[in-house]
Amino acid sequence: MRFLLHGDETVIAAGLAKHPEAARRVEIRHAERVIAMDEKPAQALRRGKGTSMWGAVEAVREGQAVAAVSAGNTGALWTISRLILRMCADLERPALVASIPTPRGVTTFLDVGANIDCDAERLVEFAIMGEAFHRAAHGVPKPTVGLLNVGSEEMKGHEEVREANRVLREGKIDLDYRGFVEGDDITRGSVDVVVTDGFTGNISMKAMEGAARFMNAELRAAFTSGLIPTLGYLLARPALRKFRERMSPTPAAPLLGLNGIVVKGHGGASAQDFAKAIQLAVDLARSDFSAEIERNMRRLPDALAEPLPGDSAASNGAAAPDVAPQGADE
Amino acid sequence: MRFLLHGDETVIAAGLAKHPEAARRVEIRHAERVIAMDEKPAQALRRGKGTSMWGAVEAVREGQAVAAVSAGNTGALWTISRLILRMCADLERPALVASIPTPRGVTTFLDVGANIDCDAERLVEFAIMGEAFHRAAHGVPKPTVGLLNVGSEEMKGHEEVREANRVLREGKIDLDYRGFVEGDDITRGSVDVVVTDGFTGNISMKAMEGAARFMNAELRAAFTSGLIPTLGYLLARPALRKFRERMSPTPAAPLLGLNGIVVKGHGGASAQDFAKAIQLAVDLARSDFSAEIERNMRRLPDALAEPLPGDSAASNGAAAPDVAPQGADE
Repeated sequence: MRFLLHGDETVIAAGLAKHPEAARRVEIRHAERVIAMDEKPAQALRRGKGTSMWGAVEAVREGQAVAAVSAGNTGALWTISRLILRMCADLERPALVASIPTPRGVTTFLDVGANIDCDAERLVEFAIMGEAFHRAAHGVPKPTVGLLNVGSEEMKGHEEVREANRVLREGKIDLDYRGFVEGDDITRGSVDVVVTDGFTGNISMKAMEGAARFMNAELRAAFTSGLIPTLGYLLARPALRKFRERMSPTPAAPLLGLNGIVVKGHGGASAQDFAKAIQLAVDLARSDFSAEIERNMRRLPDALAEPLPGDSAASNGAAAPDVAPQGADE
Repeated sequence: MRFLLHGDETVIAAGLAKHPEAARRVEIRHAERVIAMDEKPAQALRRGKGTSMWGAVEAVREGQAVAAVSAGNTGALWTISRLILRMCADLERPALVASIPTPRGVTTFLDVGANIDCDAERLVEFAIMGEAFHRAAHGVPKPTVGLLNVGSEEMKGHEEVREANRVLREGKIDLDYRGFVEGDDITRGSVDVVVTDGFTGNISMKAMEGAARFMNAELRAAFTSGLIPTLGYLLARPALRKFRERMSPTPAAPLLGLNGIVVKGHGGASAQDFAKAIQLAVDLARSDFSAEIERNMRRLPDALAEPLPGDSAASNGAAAPDVAPQGADE
């Protein structure tokens, strides 16, 4: 493995001087400027050329790198990646994935990013990309896929959600689709990949993060509420540390839907977090990820074709289809 | 305070025989039948007359009771209440409130129920009802209100959300509106009342519940991972019990938007939970809750009127308005 490091040459060289082993695998690409963390995407686009972020993404387009990794400004990385690499899907913006811990492992949850208004086609695109990502990142041969919806029968979801459900159930897209799932299925691990629009995804992911943060704070308060609980805490500490590690958010996520691999590391990434982001980029680059997405994307137009009149309950808004177990006939 | 108990007379009378004090405050209204927990709302509507649930709601319409409390089938309670009491707002279904614990107290979060497709008017109606509810239930004189949206500037929410934000900011509705909030503000307590559509609300509430359940399970696993952590747990147990109580969901919620007070108790409600549901109904009935909602609802048509051309940035989809602190001029 070899690395191109984009940034200020003197700073990078000084850092590398302490790590001669790493230095042998590195080529420095000097960049005069950087994109600031608070820069607006439009601004980043105008003055992005010549920045380290721009250089890293451009190296992917030029075939000099198989993937770009950045822990910088998310909006700028989206915008620059979209301009330089172009979208392979019909999305406004790349989809952002969250990896949520569950008792079984990890749920791939998307879009938690920026695609606010999603029609059925976009939801199916998320399903295709999320499934390929989950296989590449976690080595699951045939990940299961669910579509996020509300619970009760009477009030089954938006029209887009019902239409996407119809398309996915028909089986023209090669996915192990399991039907609708609910909000609490994300952490239950009922399916490997949970698909939703960027509005619902962003809000429910932040709601979960907030709930976890609040619980941690309350837990700390409980443990420090007296001498005896504190003693209890000290005894349980090593076990609780593992608990906290398990609960901490994953440090890296791909921007899905681009012609090329771009991984976004968490803004406050530690060295270890950044190593995980690089590992994720490597896993994706070594997998069949991009080809698999392309293959299923080509099936989309046929799958989206209007159903025969007899099948049209799902698309006329009158009734929601029942959740079908995998392989059920329509 | 007096109670009408609707249900099987012999069962109720047998129960009351053990509680002579309570029996003096109770009048039994015999009902031959009950709505089953798994009955579909449409079914409940057809064969609802003569059931205990129907009788309880009807007593509110007839002025015999100031509020109805039920821990039965939610969908049936919605449907029957809507038919008998009628909606005071222009909603398809009553809005359902969740009360979420925060470091400051409780966030009133709505709609977590059944209103899936919400235009700006409905979101404003939720704000009006949620604010009046929060004051009545928690004694906060002037609750603050926020509208749930995604984070980054570039991708600020659906058109309906932006339009509702405009209406609420203009100040024609008498609310302490604080602008947009994000998913993690629900448990942070940034505002007293968080407003969203029933799709996003239902999913994000269940996502939070799932996250909390998962964390509790992992915590249990950490504590039972060996002798020493278990000893730690035993020492901290009383403090952790308080933690768990604080995290447990509230046992009752009103159905908002009806001409009359209906409180839904949790399906698995204990006696204590049910007492809390009754207390909530009493608090609402004793407050100015219904009159306050009516007053603000009358302001709605004027507030919804189209803005002047110069103000129209929010409604043409071109740009999202900035979040204004309370009292800021437009």
